Amino acid sequence: MKHVVIRQLPPADPAVVEHLRMLGVATVHEAMGRVGLMRPHMRPLFDGAQVAGRAVTVLTTPGDNWMIHVACEVCAPADVLVVACTADSTDGMVGDLLATLMQARGVSGLVLDAGCRDVRQIRAMKFPIWSKAISAQGTVKATLGAVNVPVVCAGAAVQAGDVIVADDDGVVVVPHARAAEVARAAQERSDREETARVRMAAGGPAAAAMGAMRQRLVDLGMVWVDTPADAGLQAAPSTHSLTGTP
Amino acid sequence: MKHVVIRQLPPADPAVVEHLRMLGVATVHEAMGRVGLMRPHMRPLFDGAQVAGRAVTVLTTPGDNWMIHVACEVCAPADVLVVACTADSTDGMVGDLLATLMQARGVSGLVLDAGCRDVRQIRAMKFPIWSKAISAQGTVKATLGAVNVPVVCAGAAVQAGDVIVADDDGVVVVPHARAAEVARAAQERSDREETARVRMAAGGPAAAAMGAMRQRLVDLGMVWVDTPADAGLQAAPSTHSLTGTP
Amino acid sequence: MKHVVIRQLPPADPAVVEHLRMLGVATVHEAMGRVGLMRPHMRPLFDGAQVAGRAVTVLTTPGDNWMIHVACEVCAPADVLVVACTADSTDGMVGDLLATLMQARGVSGLVLDAGCRDVRQIRAMKFPIWSKAISAQGTVKATLGAVNVPVVCAGAAVQAGDVIVADDDGVVVVPHARAAEVARAAQERSDREETARVRMAAGGPAAAAMGAMRQRLVDLGMVWVDTPADAGLQAAPSTHSLTGTP
Amino acid sequence: MKHVVIRQLPPADPAVVEHLRMLGVATVHEAMGRVGLMRPHMRPLFDGAQVAGRAVTVLTTPGDNWMIHVACEVCAPADVLVVACTADSTDGMVGDLLATLMQARGVSGLVLDAGCRDVRQIRAMKFPIWSKAISAQGTVKATLGAVNVPVVCAGAAVQAGDVIVADDDGVVVVPHARAAEVARAAQERSDREETARVRMAAGGPAAAAMGAMRQRLVDLGMVWVDTPADAGLQAAPSTHSLTGTP
Amino acid sequence: MKHVVIRQLPPADPAVVEHLRMLGVATVHEAMGRVGLMRPHMRPLFDGAQVAGRAVTVLTTPGDNWMIHVACEVCAPADVLVVACTADSTDGMVGDLLATLMQARGVSGLVLDAGCRDVRQIRAMKFPIWSKAISAQGTVKATLGAVNVPVVCAGAAVQAGDVIVADDDGVVVVPHARAAEVARAAQERSDREETARVRMAAGGPAAAAMGAMRQRLVDLGMVWVDTPADAGLQAAPSTHSLTGTP
Amino acid sequence: MKHVVIRQLPPADPAVVEHLRMLGVATVHEAMGRVGLMRPHMRPLFDGAQVAGRAVTVLTTPGDNWMIHVACEVCAPADVLVVACTADSTDGMVGDLLATLMQARGVSGLVLDAGCRDVRQIRAMKFPIWSKAISAQGTVKATLGAVNVPVVCAGAAVQAGDVIVADDDGVVVVPHARAAEVARAAQERSDREETARVRMAAGGPAAAAMGAMRQRLVDLGMVWVDTPADAGLQAAPSTHSLTGTP
Repeated sequence: MKHVVIRQLPPADPAVVEHLRMLGVATVHEAMGRVGLMRPHMRPLFDGAQVAGRAVTVLTTPGDNWMIHVACEVCAPADVLVVACTADSTDGMVGDLLATLMQARGVSGLVLDAGCRDVRQIRAMKFPIWSKAISAQGTVKATLGAVNVPVVCAGAAVQAGDVIVADDDGVVVVPHARAAEVARAAQERSDREETARVRMAAGGPAAAAMGAMRQRLVDLGMVWVDTPADAGLQAAPSTHSLTGTP
Repeated sequence: MKHVVIRQLPPADPAVVEHLRMLGVATVHEAMGRVGLMRPHMRPLFDGAQVAGRAVTVLTTPGDNWMIHVACEVCAPADVLVVACTADSTDGMVGDLLATLMQARGVSGLVLDAGCRDVRQIRAMKFPIWSKAISAQGTVKATLGAVNVPVVCAGAAVQAGDVIVADDDGVVVVPHARAAEVARAAQERSDREETARVRMAAGGPAAAAMGAMRQRLVDLGMVWVDTPADAGLQAAPSTHSLTGTP
Repeated sequence: MKHVVIRQLPPADPAVVEHLRMLGVATVHEAMGRVGLMRPHMRPLFDGAQVAGRAVTVLTTPGDNWMIHVACEVCAPADVLVVACTADSTDGMVGDLLATLMQARGVSGLVLDAGCRDVRQIRAMKFPIWSKAISAQGTVKATLGAVNVPVVCAGAAVQAGDVIVADDDGVVVVPHARAAEVARAAQERSDREETARVRMAAGGPAAAAMGAMRQRLVDLGMVWVDTPADAGLQAAPSTHSLTGTP
Repeated sequence: MKHVVIRQLPPADPAVVEHLRMLGVATVHEAMGRVGLMRPHMRPLFDGAQVAGRAVTVLTTPGDNWMIHVACEVCAPADVLVVACTADSTDGMVGDLLATLMQARGVSGLVLDAGCRDVRQIRAMKFPIWSKAISAQGTVKATLGAVNVPVVCAGAAVQAGDVIVADDDGVVVVPHARAAEVARAAQERSDREETARVRMAAGGPAAAAMGAMRQRLVDLGMVWVDTPADAGLQAAPSTHSLTGTP
Repeated sequence: MKHVVIRQLPPADPAVVEHLRMLGVATVHEAMGRVGLMRPHMRPLFDGAQVAGRAVTVLTTPGDNWMIHVACEVCAPADVLVVACTADSTDGMVGDLLATLMQARGVSGLVLDAGCRDVRQIRAMKFPIWSKAISAQGTVKATLGAVNVPVVCAGAAVQAGDVIVADDDGVVVVPHARAAEVARAAQERSDREETARVRMAAGGPAAAAMGAMRQRLVDLGMVWVDTPADAGLQAAPSTHSLTGTP
Repeated sequence: MKHVVIRQLPPADPAVVEHLRMLGVATVHEAMGRVGLMRPHMRPLFDGAQVAGRAVTVLTTPGDNWMIHVACEVCAPADVLVVACTADSTDGMVGDLLATLMQARGVSGLVLDAGCRDVRQIRAMKFPIWSKAISAQGTVKATLGAVNVPVVCAGAAVQAGDVIVADDDGVVVVPHARAAEVARAAQERSDREETARVRMAAGGPAAAAMGAMRQRLVDLGMVWVDTPADAGLQAAPSTHSLTGTP
């Protein structure tokens, strides 16, 4: 790869970013057409964090955190640092020192497809991290990577300047140019869900089992019967599979 | 598979179900002869939940949650919904809307061999879920499955009407016809453990190292010595394996 | 293997052990030259536990916890029990009874490359456990292993008498003869980190991006530019990878 | 579990079994409605084996192969031995001695949700095994299990007497009572596929993209365009994601 | 996502594609600066296949192969089909019918981040496939995806028109615009390796241990000694870790 | 760790090494008391290789193969190179150039707890490698490790000078001082197995099901019955779990 640090990112609209943050990962992901989600191995270091911000991207080799130090210098307040490795790794690339630096520079959060450490201290600092692992395994500063080039992080393509949304449900990537449009679509979806929530709270029926959807179940051949025998299935044995007396 | 929804389940004895819930997964599993446990990738969404209830089973394809909507209609209060996929999946099949519906219908909990989402909201609702993953990945409503047919969920065979017991230790399946018997056996085991607990709290000895068990250790060839040299082992090196100065 | 229980361990210096405990896993691991760390699948049962102690080692077969009972008898107060299996296993080898026994004997904590169970009770007892899994799967008492022989636990070599340090970052093994030296080196590192922390809290620069380190980045060919075009990269497309309208 | 060996199995129709064997796993699985397949971690020890036979089931604990010895006694010629463990295990439960015994008794093959060993010898003997792992890890003979009780093997429910079909695509379970019906349905499917194969060999179109299926694509909103710009997507950058000069 | 099929791809230079194919994955990957490689879970269905071609990309949901049928229509001879899923899946998305269609249309190979089936037949056909799994699990044709949009497949970003190179070492993606340049750089590397190979075949020294590299080892502090004692390490015990008599 | 290359190893007895090689991994592992086996993710690059030799150990960081070059210089003919990483890695640390060097120096084989590449060429060369993965991912030469220090490789402790035995069943480590004794014990076991093989080839009974072992089955409570009903189990349903008509 070209060993480059790109310093300038397109500006993000703070209102849109905040809107996306409030809507949350699941709704934003739906509004995008169910793309852009990182793999579910990305988990938050503590519950309840809700972050959105402009992506500063880092590409590094496993076991080497040099580029993260370099990237911190180009982070602006409210950015989210996104770290991708050239191969799978769980090494502890970020600890409380780097987290302190990020927090001091106003970085909103860290998305790290590797491990982090000093997690007791980082939890106490309330600095939000989504990572693949917790590991004290130390790293070196020996090999160049790149900053703000396009990367693939936890299965999702990220370009510097994209909006990252992260919460208890994981991490989703919104392309820079689509951020406002996605926020609008997500808000609409959220509004529709409120209606559904009222019906759900009253005990249903579920949207997927009413009206046209119910007809489609029937058309596809779904059958409702009272008992297994009605379905041509034998009654279940009373002492089935894997059991016996101790 | 036959695309069928079976509406009627054998009734569960509420006293037995409550008894099993109080006894908990580990004790019930032991009382059953150490069978019926789901694989340990099934983890609760929050600590401390203790649930038992009659199983309503769902068989679905990965990435499709249509059948879960359909199954909600046949859940009675206190039931536990058990969702199995035809192949491994982490997709987010259940979110806060479905959880709201389940809670409104009195469902006791959800056991889901896939992913769930909107987890902050679901934790706030205190609706208990055991799942394989947390993932915002959305699902479709396109393919038929079946409701209340026998399934394999997280490695355990489940028949509609079985009693599901779930807590911080995982999820265990008690066959419908054996529920009362298992509760009795589990209670007996629990009582015996109280005696052992008193001895343990006094510092032992462990049951497995006393009386007949100790004799069996000796018979099988166990040897107690004071030092590695007494065992014919060389003394451990003082600066062993993998170490040195930084 | 030889089925032996070795009863005597070299004494540990309580001041050194306490010192290592306070310094924590990440710092101790660095001070050792980044060796001796167990794999990151070893996770604590609850957050915040910080333990150090002399290792009592157990080698057992999957699904058999007999040797753990035997090992409890040779644990002295403040020891840490380290359980290794001859093959990968998640079975629930330790529950609240054994935890009660360990706590009664003053054992500081348990490091278990397998599963544990009764975790609600154990969390309530505040007995610290690091394990690979939570599983109610019961175990037998049928096959001999060994106690206080050298083992490999979660990828780390452990000899009886080594000092185990465990906290939210994982578990590290300090060879018996190096404990004092490692504690000193870790303290020095910790002191140095305080200086760095002050600089970090002021917003940097990161150690790895200042002075000689920055010159080395330049020497290796790192380039700083303002825009992708400056780097010979095309501007990122505005609607990139995986996206579209819902 | 109840420690029982059930000696009598329902007879299998040799013609139906042979028919299922010839049709193969993928076709049989489809004919069953896409259920009954074991998880894809079950792999053959050598390519090209095609086996079908009546299931003799074994339930055992990890690391203990005693029950497999016991089960061999109740195998009839042409049976397939199916071994399930109460927890995940890769231990080498079967080696060339047991394989020799099975082959001598006319057993058609072995399906083992654990490890096997002596694989060079077993390949030379051409005894077909599907397993989860290859491992020399030895096992003990210490704990009772059961033979010919219902089990869950690699995610599939198996009852003694079911027909097991196994080939390079994996392993599928056909319930005893449905064997003849499934063979007929699979044959019909196989016949239909011959027609499709002729069309495919001529270059298509694919069944899923012709006729009514094509109309459904259109109805659901599929759009065909010539260029990314036609789709409202920006042209792909010429030097995209992750690249640069060395 | 937008449900679109993009029909036109930029032309690939056949000479460059053939050159990349001959150079192979490892050399091309190095020449690109060690980026663009798919994760190592992508394995060939048979040894010895060496393929390169222009990427036709498919984005689909787990368990649904409809889009693959649709994509076959837009494949030109010599193209390589690249299938990505929106979530992890091992379902058997391609079997011998689709492989027959691809082969009939002159498709060079298939790269599939999911499962394939009918593998005995496909091996006999010698149609090259790289996939994540072998699984007979059938798929549906129910949900739209997209064809020739940018995707992430097995951790690598792919744009339609990129050159895919695949052999026994895995799969690498060369951006369309960089194909000629990468082929040249890879050829140069290959030439240099020939010189090294001659030295290696004569017994060394390894490039990394000669000349300037050796000096750097010394500068960084590498020490050569004769015995463990010379290194301040205690002699290894003669009967170390985990051993004893049976 | 201390960055040291230890040049001298204790000599291995060629007759003992050859004896261990012929006996093979499974038998040697048993003779050692079922310890010393590497985890089953270590697989050979081609079938049929049978290797034994004195271990030259390498400890390296993920993604860095510098130390392997350095280690080649201290390999004597017939040695086996054993490469351990400080953290899990699949990077392609060894390719055909290094394999050529190793073969030229008479190295018997390579045991690599990481990835290898250029596997077509290495298979053609018939240089035996056991590794965790096949990956073209390139590595750097930037960070020091150590050579001939004790390591943990794939879960097994290895000291320089130990005898490594590797074949289709995996890799086992025999401590230097025990090599002759283990070879003798393994030969005795192999001889005993010949007797068992004759009985097995005649159809049994299995050793574990005859004589005293059978009596122990009975003593522990094993029961033989003819039918499920005899065991107090209900008859299996004829159309059980997960099935139906397509």
